[in-house]
Amino acid sequence: MAHTQLFPVRFDDVDYARVVFFPKLFAYAHRVFEDFFQIELGESYATVLERRKIGFPSVHAEADFIAPLRFGDTCRAVLEVERVSKGSIACRYELLREAPRTLAATIRIVVATIDLDTFAPIAVPDDLRALFLRHIRADGE
Amino acid sequence: MAHTQLFPVRFDDVDYARVVFFPKLFAYAHRVFEDFFQIELGESYATVLERRKIGFPSVHAEADFIAPLRFGDTCRAVLEVERVSKGSIACRYELLREAPRTLAATIRIVVATIDLDTFAPIAVPDDLRALFLRHIRADGE
Amino acid sequence: MAHTQLFPVRFDDVDYARVVFFPKLFAYAHRVFEDFFQIELGESYATVLERRKIGFPSVHAEADFIAPLRFGDTCRAVLEVERVSKGSIACRYELLREAPRTLAATIRIVVATIDLDTFAPIAVPDDLRALFLRHIRADGE
Amino acid sequence: MAHTQLFPVRFDDVDYARVVFFPKLFAYAHRVFEDFFQIELGESYATVLERRKIGFPSVHAEADFIAPLRFGDTCRAVLEVERVSKGSIACRYELLREAPRTLAATIRIVVATIDLDTFAPIAVPDDLRALFLRHIRADGE
Repeated sequence: MAHTQLFPVRFDDVDYARVVFFPKLFAYAHRVFEDFFQIELGESYATVLERRKIGFPSVHAEADFIAPLRFGDTCRAVLEVERVSKGSIACRYELLREAPRTLAATIRIVVATIDLDTFAPIAVPDDLRALFLRHIRADGE
Repeated sequence: MAHTQLFPVRFDDVDYARVVFFPKLFAYAHRVFEDFFQIELGESYATVLERRKIGFPSVHAEADFIAPLRFGDTCRAVLEVERVSKGSIACRYELLREAPRTLAATIRIVVATIDLDTFAPIAVPDDLRALFLRHIRADGE
Repeated sequence: MAHTQLFPVRFDDVDYARVVFFPKLFAYAHRVFEDFFQIELGESYATVLERRKIGFPSVHAEADFIAPLRFGDTCRAVLEVERVSKGSIACRYELLREAPRTLAATIRIVVATIDLDTFAPIAVPDDLRALFLRHIRADGE
Repeated sequence: MAHTQLFPVRFDDVDYARVVFFPKLFAYAHRVFEDFFQIELGESYATVLERRKIGFPSVHAEADFIAPLRFGDTCRAVLEVERVSKGSIACRYELLREAPRTLAATIRIVVATIDLDTFAPIAVPDDLRALFLRHIRADGE
């Protein structure tokens, strides 16, 4: 079941070409990942990091940029989980311009789970594994 | 022939985990691309955009993050061109921690060439094609 | 009547000291100013800029930083208007940590009104003057 | 004796109005402060923070924005020290467009010195006091 968020493109998110600077689109995806915890788990991303000392560093990221997002656009972000392995989670994000509805970017980010104090790899905890599996992509990809 | 730049990791480039926030690594690569023009072409990126009305939107970006960069590190960025096609340029960046020399990330970014006023695709201009071909990756890919 | 917004401190809003990087606090204030239009005027900031070609460049900004904001904090931002003159608007922002409620920063920003195409000064339009005057600070300063 | 740095305005430093987003000008000033240590003290800002566990949180910042900086501009930043007190340092920055030479902004930032581990105030260490006093503003202001 896909997880969806909407947010505005900010005045300072755009660059000289007046479209969202592409690294910012990866930051959008990260923000969706952050808020996913609060919305779907009922525990904030900050709490997971601070209390449980789990970190989620990105080990791989890739994106295709199809159409620009501009200041004033509402961005619709759709997160689906592609895969949960022993020590990593792969998420796929679609970023769309809301009106008229247009696909702006597809982003894929793989995060590893680590001990935030030692940066050593840890297994994805069971409750988080269950959380992400609830949002696995329908067609299995 | 690879093109190399060195720059410091800034106080505000790191996130709560005290490593460079991964979207910022894409921004590092973009900055290397910007300065490449001034250093290797003798014409600033701004001049190419403003006077010649050429834009270089990213159409694809991907990265593997191997080791973190931290505040106080010097980042060594190595740009090599993978391919110049009719209307796009693919560049590969290695970001390394300078001391001890450690590979932090490999990034690949494909930019299209467009008319900055109309956003319509244009062919890579001959002088820019020649510029990028001078930095093509030795082994061809 | 004060205008209030709440938003989370983001993972990448903090710097190496793990507190919100102070220029980001000015960016927070700007974001509050942006959203003030949509919430209180019913017209987005982007619409005012794009359709009416009005710009609001900051001509003065000042802040006292009293306590840090940290990742995981909710920021409560309170906007009050200090003064609306012919061609400028002075706003005062209090940024508070929500729990426990603590004053983090007081910020004062003066924006001028300009024609966004020519950057020439213009008078504050009547509807915007009325909007801002509805949020004038009770004690007059 | 004033301390001067030059750096380019970046593609992504500008906002929708195509001028440098004003919070970024405070970030410029912070970067000048960072590099001041390496250039004038011969010890990097990171080293001072990490090895000596000294922090320099901003307690006050103010700025007048006189003219915009745009993508492609070279920014000339001039740092002068206004005052070094027991536990704080007040610096004044002029940010100028290099060509044609135009004053863009004057910024004043007061930092306190703290123990970076405890955030408790500490006295400005003698070597840093001497460093900053070498760059005190001529007219005493």
